[in-house]
Amino acid sequence: MHSVSAYQEYFIAYLEKQVIHKEPRNLYEPIQYILSLGGKRMRPVLTLMSAEVFDANYQKALPAAMAVEVFHNFSLVHDDIMDAAPLRRGNVTVHEKWDINTGILSGDAMLILAYQYFEKYEPKTFRKLAKLFSKTALEVCEGQQWDVDFETRTDVTIPEYLKMIEFKTAVLVAAAMKMGAIIAKTSKSNAKLIYDFGLNLGIAFQLQDDFLDAFGDPATFGKQVGGDIIENKKTFLFLKAMEFSTQTQKSRLLHLFSENLENSEAKIEEVKQIFMESGASLATQEAIKDYTHQAFDTLDKMNIDADKKALLKTFGENLMGRKV
Amino acid sequence: MHSVSAYQEYFIAYLEKQVIHKEPRNLYEPIQYILSLGGKRMRPVLTLMSAEVFDANYQKALPAAMAVEVFHNFSLVHDDIMDAAPLRRGNVTVHEKWDINTGILSGDAMLILAYQYFEKYEPKTFRKLAKLFSKTALEVCEGQQWDVDFETRTDVTIPEYLKMIEFKTAVLVAAAMKMGAIIAKTSKSNAKLIYDFGLNLGIAFQLQDDFLDAFGDPATFGKQVGGDIIENKKTFLFLKAMEFSTQTQKSRLLHLFSENLENSEAKIEEVKQIFMESGASLATQEAIKDYTHQAFDTLDKMNIDADKKALLKTFGENLMGRKV
Repeated sequence: MHSVSAYQEYFIAYLEKQVIHKEPRNLYEPIQYILSLGGKRMRPVLTLMSAEVFDANYQKALPAAMAVEVFHNFSLVHDDIMDAAPLRRGNVTVHEKWDINTGILSGDAMLILAYQYFEKYEPKTFRKLAKLFSKTALEVCEGQQWDVDFETRTDVTIPEYLKMIEFKTAVLVAAAMKMGAIIAKTSKSNAKLIYDFGLNLGIAFQLQDDFLDAFGDPATFGKQVGGDIIENKKTFLFLKAMEFSTQTQKSRLLHLFSENLENSEAKIEEVKQIFMESGASLATQEAIKDYTHQAFDTLDKMNIDADKKALLKTFGENLMGRKV
Repeated sequence: MHSVSAYQEYFIAYLEKQVIHKEPRNLYEPIQYILSLGGKRMRPVLTLMSAEVFDANYQKALPAAMAVEVFHNFSLVHDDIMDAAPLRRGNVTVHEKWDINTGILSGDAMLILAYQYFEKYEPKTFRKLAKLFSKTALEVCEGQQWDVDFETRTDVTIPEYLKMIEFKTAVLVAAAMKMGAIIAKTSKSNAKLIYDFGLNLGIAFQLQDDFLDAFGDPATFGKQVGGDIIENKKTFLFLKAMEFSTQTQKSRLLHLFSENLENSEAKIEEVKQIFMESGASLATQEAIKDYTHQAFDTLDKMNIDADKKALLKTFGENLMGRKV
């Protein structure tokens, strides 16, 4: 096994070797562009790590890791169009740099390119990987649709919200890890457990993202703190606050979440206050811990060496900022 | 072997059995909608026919035929967004009935659903089908990009135009037929020949579409006659006219193709006159014949019974309106 940063390096070296400078330029340049914007490469790293956890060389898992990263970036390109987002990782989004049509078509090509990376594997493995990939990709689309639907609904429940983030975010983390297990040809039981590990860690990760969006340190969070509050996003924090707060707090919160202000400083502060006083903040931190511990519990059931379990656990702890 | 209309019936019965009424509704209803709008179902019918030409029961080919049809409809949904088209087969387009975001996301889901239909096949066939499908799907995207690029270029050559329609239209017809060959497990040589048959027939079909757009009978063409001229589309007719016409005709044509008129009656008539006088009309009809005959020549080389060759030939002749 190697360190996380070593896997990142191996993956980036592989990614940079890929020839995506093809014709027509207007189709392939945006793909090259979005793939070179960086990011933590968390998902492909998990595919490589998972392969080695189950005793395969990480090199065998590079094409599948690439498929996962290309798919993830496809979803960013199309989601950014849908959200009319001007920036991604501090750079202009594809549809801003080119146009919406280019974003649609280059995204489509990326989804297909992702499948092509599985062609490096022999038929049985190819079929397993592509099948898992299709199921996951469809769930990500469903998650995105729920997210869109929730914007105009006022009756979203906590279980519905959790299902949405599971589909939109966690299933891809889970599938990325299961791909490593498939490539390493480990037992079905191990493959299922690593999927569940990834799924729970993915949910914890997304809940933490919700939490940090309100309570994160502006210096380290990377995005605008309070962004979800400005956009009136019904995150876990909001839903929990609606569940726990008094009738007065509730109407105040609903009023605040109906506003679109030029300057949101005061709104952000007041909403955060309600999140804390209502107990929503604490409940969110508890949920993050719960999902992280559920992830760690599945590790215990896995039939692998103790040092490998320790490594996956360390990865999970680092991902959660050692706050669990 | 059955008749073309029988294959259409079998395919439609299979399509109507598919359960696409799933949650979230806003993702799956548009898919149901576009798939139910009809059309000739030419591509899936070719997959079924091709399977039987190579001695497999058409029923084995139904899932692959469905994949082809779902993919074709995916490309219509996304292309209609890019072209800002209000109508498709006489009905409102998906992005008009819902919105652009719904069109993007439902289209994405259709591309994934198409791949899932190959899961009905065992690993070796699955891999062959999915590999052919990915290659084809990427070429369709490239063809669409060339088509977009050509709109703003003034130096498009005839070979470039032919490559564009090959990728945008013909490769899917070719792949639809090769899938039947793969499912029937015929020889590699037969599979390649049926691909070439479909490719040439597909190019002939698209050139005929260009021709009929200007010279078709309004009563039977199905689309607005003169539509390409109104939109200043540089079709085969236009490019041939530019090649053959006098300097005076050329400048007149370029002028006409720079106009966007409220009433295009006179423009359409004048352009058609130039298409005829320059010999572009005749050259297009010749090219349609050439590609159709090239398709028929590949039939002769195929190792199948004479009656099956005759059937494919009749299909080709009917498709070309017995005008070749």
